[in-house]
Amino acid sequence: MRKYTPANFTDVRLTGAFWRERLDTVLAHTVPSQYRQLEAHDILSSLKLPKPVPELTIPRNAHNFTTQIFWDSDVGKWIEAASYALHHRRDAGIEAKIDAIVNDLEKAQLPDGYLNCWYIEREPENRWTNLRDNHELYNAGHLLEGAVAYFRATGRRKFLDVMERYVDHIAATFGTGPGQKRGYPGHQEIELALIKLYQLTGDSKRLDLAAYFINERGQSPHYFTEEARRREGDRFLQGTQEYNQSHKPVREQDKVVGHAVRAFYMYTAMADLAAELDDAALKHACETLWKDVTETRMYITGGFGPSASNEGFTKDYDLPNATAYAETCASVAMVFWAQRMLNIDLEGKYADMLEQALYNNCMAGLSRDGEHYFYDNPLESDGSHQRWEWHPCPCCTMNVARFIASVSGYFYSTSADALIVHLYGGTEARFEIAGTAVKLKETSNYPWSGNIDIRIDPSKATEFSLKLRIPAWAKDAKVAVNGQRLPVNGNVQRGYLDIRRVWSRGDRVELDLPMPIERIYAHPEVRDDFGKTALMRGPLVYCIEQADNTDTSIPLVVLPRNAMLSPVERPDLFDGIVAIEAKAQQIKTRDWAGVLYRNTPSATADIALVAIPYFLWANRGPNAMRVWIDEM
Amino acid sequence: MRKYTPANFTDVRLTGAFWRERLDTVLAHTVPSQYRQLEAHDILSSLKLPKPVPELTIPRNAHNFTTQIFWDSDVGKWIEAASYALHHRRDAGIEAKIDAIVNDLEKAQLPDGYLNCWYIEREPENRWTNLRDNHELYNAGHLLEGAVAYFRATGRRKFLDVMERYVDHIAATFGTGPGQKRGYPGHQEIELALIKLYQLTGDSKRLDLAAYFINERGQSPHYFTEEARRREGDRFLQGTQEYNQSHKPVREQDKVVGHAVRAFYMYTAMADLAAELDDAALKHACETLWKDVTETRMYITGGFGPSASNEGFTKDYDLPNATAYAETCASVAMVFWAQRMLNIDLEGKYADMLEQALYNNCMAGLSRDGEHYFYDNPLESDGSHQRWEWHPCPCCTMNVARFIASVSGYFYSTSADALIVHLYGGTEARFEIAGTAVKLKETSNYPWSGNIDIRIDPSKATEFSLKLRIPAWAKDAKVAVNGQRLPVNGNVQRGYLDIRRVWSRGDRVELDLPMPIERIYAHPEVRDDFGKTALMRGPLVYCIEQADNTDTSIPLVVLPRNAMLSPVERPDLFDGIVAIEAKAQQIKTRDWAGVLYRNTPSATADIALVAIPYFLWANRGPNAMRVWIDEM
Repeated sequence: MRKYTPANFTDVRLTGAFWRERLDTVLAHTVPSQYRQLEAHDILSSLKLPKPVPELTIPRNAHNFTTQIFWDSDVGKWIEAASYALHHRRDAGIEAKIDAIVNDLEKAQLPDGYLNCWYIEREPENRWTNLRDNHELYNAGHLLEGAVAYFRATGRRKFLDVMERYVDHIAATFGTGPGQKRGYPGHQEIELALIKLYQLTGDSKRLDLAAYFINERGQSPHYFTEEARRREGDRFLQGTQEYNQSHKPVREQDKVVGHAVRAFYMYTAMADLAAELDDAALKHACETLWKDVTETRMYITGGFGPSASNEGFTKDYDLPNATAYAETCASVAMVFWAQRMLNIDLEGKYADMLEQALYNNCMAGLSRDGEHYFYDNPLESDGSHQRWEWHPCPCCTMNVARFIASVSGYFYSTSADALIVHLYGGTEARFEIAGTAVKLKETSNYPWSGNIDIRIDPSKATEFSLKLRIPAWAKDAKVAVNGQRLPVNGNVQRGYLDIRRVWSRGDRVELDLPMPIERIYAHPEVRDDFGKTALMRGPLVYCIEQADNTDTSIPLVVLPRNAMLSPVERPDLFDGIVAIEAKAQQIKTRDWAGVLYRNTPSATADIALVAIPYFLWANRGPNAMRVWIDEM
Repeated sequence: MRKYTPANFTDVRLTGAFWRERLDTVLAHTVPSQYRQLEAHDILSSLKLPKPVPELTIPRNAHNFTTQIFWDSDVGKWIEAASYALHHRRDAGIEAKIDAIVNDLEKAQLPDGYLNCWYIEREPENRWTNLRDNHELYNAGHLLEGAVAYFRATGRRKFLDVMERYVDHIAATFGTGPGQKRGYPGHQEIELALIKLYQLTGDSKRLDLAAYFINERGQSPHYFTEEARRREGDRFLQGTQEYNQSHKPVREQDKVVGHAVRAFYMYTAMADLAAELDDAALKHACETLWKDVTETRMYITGGFGPSASNEGFTKDYDLPNATAYAETCASVAMVFWAQRMLNIDLEGKYADMLEQALYNNCMAGLSRDGEHYFYDNPLESDGSHQRWEWHPCPCCTMNVARFIASVSGYFYSTSADALIVHLYGGTEARFEIAGTAVKLKETSNYPWSGNIDIRIDPSKATEFSLKLRIPAWAKDAKVAVNGQRLPVNGNVQRGYLDIRRVWSRGDRVELDLPMPIERIYAHPEVRDDFGKTALMRGPLVYCIEQADNTDTSIPLVVLPRNAMLSPVERPDLFDGIVAIEAKAQQIKTRDWAGVLYRNTPSATADIALVAIPYFLWANRGPNAMRVWIDEM
């Protein structure tokens, strides 16, 4: 059983300007436009079976592989995002669209429960023969998440029933019993979906199946090797077992390796199982992997996986900026994992990481207009890196949509006698703590300001803990309850300040998290950040973008170590942000004309520099950008 | 006609310790060991035709391509290197080996003169059908250079006769006449070889053929496109016309693009033709391309072509250090080109470049033991970049061998009434100037010292110019003739000091080229060198290598801008070198344990730093190395 339970996102209403804007954009623009894209790219029609088999829309690559095999997952993820949107605002039009999709899926489903539109249409004889590359279980997982979300949003259970039948088929197919395949997914995902299904229905068989997939992974003989041997003309996609984290049994894994999204989806499920089953070895593995990734393989933006070639991890401290892959999905997956770790232990480092990934790499994945996306999130660009409307592998689009549509679910947790605040921002929420209904209203302009006002309204006076996260970046935080200052320093335990008292209607907590601008430095073995600094304020990583510095050559900016950095309110930018202004320097190039090498160092000239939050970059056309700025 | 003619390398004897050691190594170790490698890798036996067709030794790659098609060129280049060695020291054993190879080639040659062992053996029906990729004309060029060199060394002309017949066949096949193919090489090389043949025999048809290949290149309709259309199942290797510099007629080319060796071999031939034919448009193109490459696309080490993917050029200022390709062959080819430019105009910048490429990137290509090689020459390594004994594409091995075996040919030029000194080092040489035999003896310990003593011995007192190159790096050079100081500052014209007088037996010139250690900076748009400095002394670029700095982490070294740099004689290293010592700093990492990002900059600790010449790196096992060092 989980020690801490995240608040249901439907119990938390976002009222602050920052998240309200993002959520409204996703509801009004992202979700509807994604439906249009799914339609325009023949992804929806691919569910209509049987029909004459159409040509591939996405041609096979050199490895004979097409990302078209993922399409079921894209539909599942869109239904999930749309369902979260319905919680905010019911919409008969959207529901009719989902119901139509569900009808298609129901029709496509085979009598034995199998449901994968690619295989049913194109190679029915090959189902379950290439778990390593062909994403059947991954697709099933995303459809299942969609079904769970749609049921929660509407109470309509046809999709859930379809998926329960499919899960029954999967449970019959895979396992350690006689005649069963001892397989597991090449792309982890279904594990965490099964746990969601368990948490919805209470059917422990679902938890058992998730645990089977996790436990079986990386055992000997190696399933993917055996499976490849059975295939003729093996489609070889990715050579290493590290790529999909099947190189060792999961409890023995201590380095974060391979494809980042696969890794983090797996760690999410591992943490879920550790909490649900009280599995100390799984918990320990999660903690070891957490330490590894956060100490050696993470971008300051909460991005993960530097390399495009494996969409994942390489070696310690290898964090190039201009070529950073840092897939949006990987940061979303990190938020999932961090939340699951918070279900086990209340450790501020998990929430700090969650917040860092959320406000920086995750948010960067969605444009201001809600209809353009980043798949990879470099920390430096010459202006050629641009947002796209759609992608041959559109995983990140629906991931960022479902994430923002449910973001309020990451703000609070509860335990038997505690209300825990992880994230800040204007909200109105309700909980049940120690048998009492508790309302909470937070007023704040977070993340632009750390001045936070929380009103607590229990239905009756009740003793419980209010645990406020004090971010690691917040030095000298101040707290007052009903105007009475509480000592903070020394009382923060593992990132949380525990205010235990009898709470009564109208109690007011004031929290001040000072947000000075900080210069951040990277470990010296991060070669690409050597001699450089990044600017943060609160949870936000800043960047310098050409659009705000029109007369400046972004690559030639140098920030003197003693340069004053000032936060500046800019109501003219993106509905109001806090920018950073600095008196900086720019390397002069005029006296280098016709010279490539010389024996005198470059001269510099004064410039006024403006930095904006990283997540907002690339919303004003092609623009050079940097997060890490050379110091002098 | 060439305005300036390089001295024949056979007229210049190297007596200084620096070059003596390299030459002796090449004669005693490199040339013989390369023969053994050619034998061991079945390259020599590939010339023995006809025989049952053996399996490929080098399997085809994904593009259906095998570097085995280059083998004729490897043999040609080895014969060229061995022939240069024979000039220094006749060797009946080597000559017998070459004669045996020549017999094989003569037997392989078809009645019509065609001679390409790959095509004759494996696909005779396909000859001259894929000039773009398959190197027939390139192979012919290297065999021809070998034949010219062997004839010059021994006077034996069988190989030359074989190649003259082949050249006749090529001249009949290609051209603008009726029935001729309007083709040209996919890999330039034969052009410069044909000019060598012309310079040996005086047969102007050879010059005409070279000019045809140069003039036809890049004309419309595009030959390679037409040729590819005629092939079934085209083997597509490299997509762009820039790759092989056929994107435009050569006189219109103004950016150095594509495969670096192809480019520089072509520019060499262009400069040759510009000199021989007094072609102003070709000369202008060479000057434009020279300016482009030296101002935007050159490593400080005289390396060229940053990218492995095209073995060549990318974009301006793109000069990454750790992944620098900087092929040894490209630097050797730059020396060729620079020498040809010096035949047209006496410009110190050409000789400066020649010297910079020679003492750094070229020399780095050959190990101290003379039997290990670098193909690519990065300017930074974590220790994983190691020398190899042989390579699937062994072009660089024989290129560096033939180059060092003939290096004395780059020291001097003559014109009607001038003796020109480009390079320094202990030599004994003879020339004919203004009808007088002139002997020259230089005593120096160059490049370790700039103190140079030159004795001039004309057979009779004669007026002529002695033009001494004053390198751009040599500030405050001093010159005395027979003890009498001459003014230098203000009298150096385009890099050369002209001492015109009646020279008599025993005249003595003392030249002092001061060699302070210089910190070199790169243009600020070279991202990888931003905030960094490289150390040079005289023509030598220095590097820091792990072997000399055992307690230091090479990537963490920082050089304060005011750190004293001292030249130190180190008789214990590589038979005696001048190293550089500095009091530097190293970033501390101990206080970073378990931390990836923090808000305080790194601390540093004092270290004693030793730098050695770049060309000597990687001779002491796996070793981290850097040329560009962070400044602070």
